[in-house]
Amino acid sequence: MTDYRRLRVALLGAGAVGSQVAALLRQHADELADRAGARLELVGIAVRNPDAPREADLPRELFTTDAETLILGADIVIELMGGIEPARTSLLQAIGSGADVVTANKALLATHGPEIFEAADQVGAQVYYEAAAAGAIPIIRPLRDSLAGDRVQRIMGIVNGTTNYILDRMDTEGADFGDVLAQAQALGYAEADPTADIEGYDAAQKAAILASLAFHTSVPLEAVHREGITAIDKPMMDAARKAGYVIKLLAVCERVVNGSGDAISVRVYPALVPREHPLASVHGANNAVFVQAEAAGNLMFYGAGAGGVQTASAVLGDVVSAARRHIAGGVGVGESTRANLPILPIGHVTTQYQITLEVTDQPGVLATVAGILSEGRVSIATVEQTVADASTDPLARVAADPTGVARLVIGTHKALEQDLSETVVRLADSDVVDRVVSVLRVEGD
Amino acid sequence: MTDYRRLRVALLGAGAVGSQVAALLRQHADELADRAGARLELVGIAVRNPDAPREADLPRELFTTDAETLILGADIVIELMGGIEPARTSLLQAIGSGADVVTANKALLATHGPEIFEAADQVGAQVYYEAAAAGAIPIIRPLRDSLAGDRVQRIMGIVNGTTNYILDRMDTEGADFGDVLAQAQALGYAEADPTADIEGYDAAQKAAILASLAFHTSVPLEAVHREGITAIDKPMMDAARKAGYVIKLLAVCERVVNGSGDAISVRVYPALVPREHPLASVHGANNAVFVQAEAAGNLMFYGAGAGGVQTASAVLGDVVSAARRHIAGGVGVGESTRANLPILPIGHVTTQYQITLEVTDQPGVLATVAGILSEGRVSIATVEQTVADASTDPLARVAADPTGVARLVIGTHKALEQDLSETVVRLADSDVVDRVVSVLRVEGD
Repeated sequence: MTDYRRLRVALLGAGAVGSQVAALLRQHADELADRAGARLELVGIAVRNPDAPREADLPRELFTTDAETLILGADIVIELMGGIEPARTSLLQAIGSGADVVTANKALLATHGPEIFEAADQVGAQVYYEAAAAGAIPIIRPLRDSLAGDRVQRIMGIVNGTTNYILDRMDTEGADFGDVLAQAQALGYAEADPTADIEGYDAAQKAAILASLAFHTSVPLEAVHREGITAIDKPMMDAARKAGYVIKLLAVCERVVNGSGDAISVRVYPALVPREHPLASVHGANNAVFVQAEAAGNLMFYGAGAGGVQTASAVLGDVVSAARRHIAGGVGVGESTRANLPILPIGHVTTQYQITLEVTDQPGVLATVAGILSEGRVSIATVEQTVADASTDPLARVAADPTGVARLVIGTHKALEQDLSETVVRLADSDVVDRVVSVLRVEGD
Repeated sequence: MTDYRRLRVALLGAGAVGSQVAALLRQHADELADRAGARLELVGIAVRNPDAPREADLPRELFTTDAETLILGADIVIELMGGIEPARTSLLQAIGSGADVVTANKALLATHGPEIFEAADQVGAQVYYEAAAAGAIPIIRPLRDSLAGDRVQRIMGIVNGTTNYILDRMDTEGADFGDVLAQAQALGYAEADPTADIEGYDAAQKAAILASLAFHTSVPLEAVHREGITAIDKPMMDAARKAGYVIKLLAVCERVVNGSGDAISVRVYPALVPREHPLASVHGANNAVFVQAEAAGNLMFYGAGAGGVQTASAVLGDVVSAARRHIAGGVGVGESTRANLPILPIGHVTTQYQITLEVTDQPGVLATVAGILSEGRVSIATVEQTVADASTDPLARVAADPTGVARLVIGTHKALEQDLSETVVRLADSDVVDRVVSVLRVEGD
């Protein structure tokens, strides 16, 4: 066996991911030493309760409640506590003590990223966070290094496994949102409090991290427009299927050519994705990140989203990178300088929409609706009615179902979000519209 | 504008990729400087004929026939000449003169990789080759860095766009091999001499590079088992479709647990892939690399295979990485040490097979065939006959078509390639078998 130099690795947190990381560090010690060029010695694991039961079989003497002392003696600190505090304080302490840090903490990076990266820059430390962006999918290095000579135009990501699992089962089995959520919770795919997933908070954190990296611009979490999937119901799913779409919760990070120069838009919402788009075939709890770059064209990165052992793979890849950097004398691959593009508010974004309306059954309805859209600068691409025995020419008349109510599905050309939302208010107020059933954005067409 | 240090970049070759690289280096100079932390000054382009017409609009004074002098003054050398010589000599010269090198030359790396990497190691230079593995798809950094803490079990890659285009059109349109090849040549997807693509030589070079990286083992091109797609015909395509498969030319790099320790197998051949496998939906000239890792699970990397501008994106990503390394004082991210796993010959590999036979129409045929397979240690998983009005119970009797010949399609369990090929010889010699129609491996089940 080669006689490698030893590097002291401190682990903060021993939950699902932390336990796996600790176990793999010990089980694969020889192989990791060959990869890293140094033995990665796990010197301690800081936890709140050292006597709590753990998933992995780890020696009791590794555990400590004293994170501060543990950090001081470490070359590499792995932060897997989650949450903002005490994770932030510990990470800054590790950076301050000269350690390189590895974290999977997307909440922390999305909210305190600039503070952490600046602290690292000042002392020449490196922050590794592959596991914070899309679980086990290697997306950080491709964006930071492989595409560094290219120009990313757009990222569309399915970055939350829970919501993809729910939407996929609603799509393939015609199941109800509530039923699937309950099953997902029973299977451990969804948390007891599912808010972070189903309301898009988790996806928004990842969107902020991906956009920051892709556009070399610090994107605060507050700048990410966010909508969850709780409004998606069976009729919307059915209508999407009939129209050749599937509904996915997307994180969209987009470069927008904006008159005076480029700007970016970062948003998370459920959107209609054409069935033939590669993202449409991402099933179950899987994640995928679809990247459109100026020269490279379309790329897609696909894999398991979360899960202790999958995320542990990404964390260990970062640990090996940090170790290689230590061996090389602490000189790392330089980060990009910043482009600092302006971030557009959601109102300034243009996309296509699908608007579904329930309208009264009387002549002239379509003309009225079309007039409102036209006044609102929203251009109609397609009109369809979903009533079963409808006329085959929906533009000629609006056919009624037996209850006297017809349903109009309007596909728009690209329109400004601001124009669209004002137009939807006017549609809702109109005498001929009974109800605005849904307004969905279309991505990937 | 930031006042960056200048790095001198020499380009060798100005074909489809080289012209794009040169053009992008100049067009995106400011942006690349921000990414790299240094201005990337294109100081010259070595070509055989400086007066030949070029795709990109480049100043005549950049061109030179004197590669040697150009290399001597360069910080970074980009080799896009292709072929073995003079590319090898120039690359070694660049390394010897202290430059970092970027190359897209898969033929050179697959045949002289160890020589080149060793020369670089000796002087502390770095060799970047993202564009040599799967065109524009970022696969090198994920394998080398992101998965460095994991253990790759298997790679299945669609790494040749021409053959995927041909097979995809045969599958989706029922077209003939020859017709599609001719059209692919007319469209520029296939070379006038298509041998390198359709016989699997190009895929084999990429397989050698991917396997070397994934298994930390030097894989010489001769160790890659290689079969092309020229034997794939319409009936085989139709039969595959009926059975729920699609035929893809796959590069398979596999870790095999082999009694005393791990070994690897690297092979390129057309294989049956289940329709629901993510690789089955890789259409047209696109490429994809499906990676199975112990902890990360299944990952897939998808994108355009070749193409001048796409490949240029990968090359420029490498140039930026090389530049960042220069700025950091020439200390790079260390390469992995070697695992040097043994490489299995194809005979020692186990996979599943689909064997299609034309047999005489007489009682006892199936018993005879089953006996030969059993003697050969090949276990039957499924038997089907493809004759239209066949009995629904193919195991009870072998139904005849009007010509008196029946067709048997046998799916096997995993069997040793050596056993399988000996068994196929015995089947071909058997009185009851008129013809062995096809033997295809099944991957991804």
